[in-house]
Amino acid sequence: MTKAIFIRNASQLVTLHGGSDAPRVKAEMSELGIIENGSVWIEDGVIQAVGTDEELAAKYANRLAEAELVDASGKLVTPGLVDPHTHLVHAGSRENEFNMRLQGKTYMEIMNAGGGIHATTRATKAASHEQLYKESFNRLNQFLRHGVTTVEAKSGYGMDWETELKQLEVANELQEKHVVDVVSTFMGAHAVPKEYKENPDEFVRVLVEEMIPKVAELGLAEFNDVFCEHGVFTPEQSRVILEAGKRHGLIAKIHADEIEPYEGAELAAEVGAISADHLLKASEKGMKAMAENGVVGVLLPGTAYFLMAESANGRKMIDLGVPVALSTDCNPGSSPTVSLPFIMNLGCLKMGMTPAEVITAATINAAHAINRGREIGSLEVGKKGDVTIFNIENYMKLQYSYGVNHTDTVVKNGRVVVKGGQLIEELSLS
Amino acid sequence: MTKAIFIRNASQLVTLHGGSDAPRVKAEMSELGIIENGSVWIEDGVIQAVGTDEELAAKYANRLAEAELVDASGKLVTPGLVDPHTHLVHAGSRENEFNMRLQGKTYMEIMNAGGGIHATTRATKAASHEQLYKESFNRLNQFLRHGVTTVEAKSGYGMDWETELKQLEVANELQEKHVVDVVSTFMGAHAVPKEYKENPDEFVRVLVEEMIPKVAELGLAEFNDVFCEHGVFTPEQSRVILEAGKRHGLIAKIHADEIEPYEGAELAAEVGAISADHLLKASEKGMKAMAENGVVGVLLPGTAYFLMAESANGRKMIDLGVPVALSTDCNPGSSPTVSLPFIMNLGCLKMGMTPAEVITAATINAAHAINRGREIGSLEVGKKGDVTIFNIENYMKLQYSYGVNHTDTVVKNGRVVVKGGQLIEELSLS
Ligand SMILES: [Zn+2]
Ligand SMILES: [Zn+2]
Repeated sequence: MTKAIFIRNASQLVTLHGGSDAPRVKAEMSELGIIENGSVWIEDGVIQAVGTDEELAAKYANRLAEAELVDASGKLVTPGLVDPHTHLVHAGSRENEFNMRLQGKTYMEIMNAGGGIHATTRATKAASHEQLYKESFNRLNQFLRHGVTTVEAKSGYGMDWETELKQLEVANELQEKHVVDVVSTFMGAHAVPKEYKENPDEFVRVLVEEMIPKVAELGLAEFNDVFCEHGVFTPEQSRVILEAGKRHGLIAKIHADEIEPYEGAELAAEVGAISADHLLKASEKGMKAMAENGVVGVLLPGTAYFLMAESANGRKMIDLGVPVALSTDCNPGSSPTVSLPFIMNLGCLKMGMTPAEVITAATINAAHAINRGREIGSLEVGKKGDVTIFNIENYMKLQYSYGVNHTDTVVKNGRVVVKGGQLIEELSLS
Repeated sequence: MTKAIFIRNASQLVTLHGGSDAPRVKAEMSELGIIENGSVWIEDGVIQAVGTDEELAAKYANRLAEAELVDASGKLVTPGLVDPHTHLVHAGSRENEFNMRLQGKTYMEIMNAGGGIHATTRATKAASHEQLYKESFNRLNQFLRHGVTTVEAKSGYGMDWETELKQLEVANELQEKHVVDVVSTFMGAHAVPKEYKENPDEFVRVLVEEMIPKVAELGLAEFNDVFCEHGVFTPEQSRVILEAGKRHGLIAKIHADEIEPYEGAELAAEVGAISADHLLKASEKGMKAMAENGVVGVLLPGTAYFLMAESANGRKMIDLGVPVALSTDCNPGSSPTVSLPFIMNLGCLKMGMTPAEVITAATINAAHAINRGREIGSLEVGKKGDVTIFNIENYMKLQYSYGVNHTDTVVKNGRVVVKGGQLIEELSLS
């Protein structure tokens, strides 16, 4: 039995209390359920009580001495942030390619210098399980320092069974051993491997008949994702891949309409995907279909920022009733970051979302995007004791005071793991 | 006599060695003077030696035991960052106005709710010297945590003598007591006070005949700045104000061409300003005039980001030979941030600068913009012992790994003041 934790007297406690079981839409996304001078009592990793400090101090008057006190006065307290779309498990970094791009080098010059997704594929294939584990473990530590307590992680830098398996095993080992929760997605359909360029349908067959059944059988993933994009997988191929996953119990996700309009949003609604991600070029028809079917739109404005492109139209999606979530898209090619707080800021300044909406998008709606809406994403009795404390007075200022990581304290499963912005000692791997 | 500091074995030591006494232009902005496995020996607050770790370990073989060792292996070491344009000394914050803007409220609705520059003017007038000092002191601490060791600070939230004096006195007291160097600028010409709306020339007369002479006489500022913008001060009024400053020994600076093209860049060249700042709408003719006259272009892409506007064309200015510097513009209305590292990232992703150029822009060129090019901004023997250590392997990755504050250690005047990303204890005010 772990010690109780009593987080006391937040200047604003953002509970996100009171929603239905569905992801939040439209005006619901602005209902933060704020308690001033708010406190939370956590025990055995689970939230036991939420209320004003006065209420909780009275309720636990006899037990104050036994709890670990966390003074949140003057601070903003929110549910632990949830990142619903990352390529966490990968090897290598590609800053040289980034530098070439800013020097005005062409796409072909960068490819000839060994850049592009195949650089990461090569590095990830070459990396040992231990090396991949270590790199990803350290990335999870950095996520924690930015207030993130749950991370989705996709495979997809192998596209051969051996490497996909290695990535999924690393994700599952991290879920076991790292304090951050890691939710696993199979994404063998991340690109068409070179050896199948002439016959991509054969690769689809391998995915559908060989890889997906094995992933499901081994219990290595909950979700099945596909990169539906012109020149990668067609909507028809994507449908076949996602339906195969569903037959094996894997929930559908989709990288949709990132570079060209390709009816990915429509497909997401049609197959009953839990989320459609990217959506920079999604059609209004597709957005409406998502809204009708409760498909979460996972928006990744960091990727647009890093690629110097226009962001998805988050404002329009919210207004049309799409439940919007936000994510880093953490990956070495198009979004090398772990800072979900910065992504939230881009949500405001590049997608016209409000400071209230971006909190909903990075907590409860993000949780729904990975099928965890009942366990995490709000501060309510019975949910996991995952809490982030920002060293800032209110939720508006969290976005107003931009470009700064305000994460001060992180409580994960009812245990303080970040204090004064620093990880507790025992989390460092080496 | 302070203890010697030996910073050892950086994976990249960015010295910026070897330039002339002038700010760096064109290809010079990419010459970082990198030493791999580089080390720096600092004593009595001054850099005594710079070279490979092997060279310095041999040179100081007999004195290793007496020095404080800072292990920089695996890390990037640069000169302490320099922020050449801030409105550091102010009271209050305006997150509510920011929130209203994102909620789609109109300019008039925001003004009627008490927003705009006058909100800050009111708060700054109302604040005691002690309160202003304390707020600004804490901001300087946050600058330090982002690797900044020198900050320019403007008055201009009073526009009456009493408040201007209070701001300047606070800046000067901070220079004395805070470890960060604070360089003071008089900016009585920040706006036309309401009482002079009908007769702005009378306010110009007060500035020229009363305030500027007093500021100079009391030795409260080195620079004299003016907001030259349609509806604020005309180029003719600005010229009068800047020439008056020059007669009293105050070096000219100018807020130029921010909102409309107004020939501010041209004026800067004509009056021999040390810098022209903002420049979003500067004409090509103005840029060329700046290049010919060595006027530093201080670019503030954070302000454009925060106001959802297009950034200045940093790429074009560099290509035309303007020496470019970067700054936060830290202020409560249009740029509430202390993160110069994030501004550097915007320099890359919003202005097309390279990872090498943004380092030059935030160090040696920023130093030149505040007439400190001989004292700080590069790691060379005889310069101040101001050093920032980033927990990242190379300068490209500093920009590539975006949205994260990589500042690990800061050495100011030869003394470690930030360690593991945290301020040393004695710096906290309260
Ligand atoms: Zn992705
Ligand atoms: Zn300014």
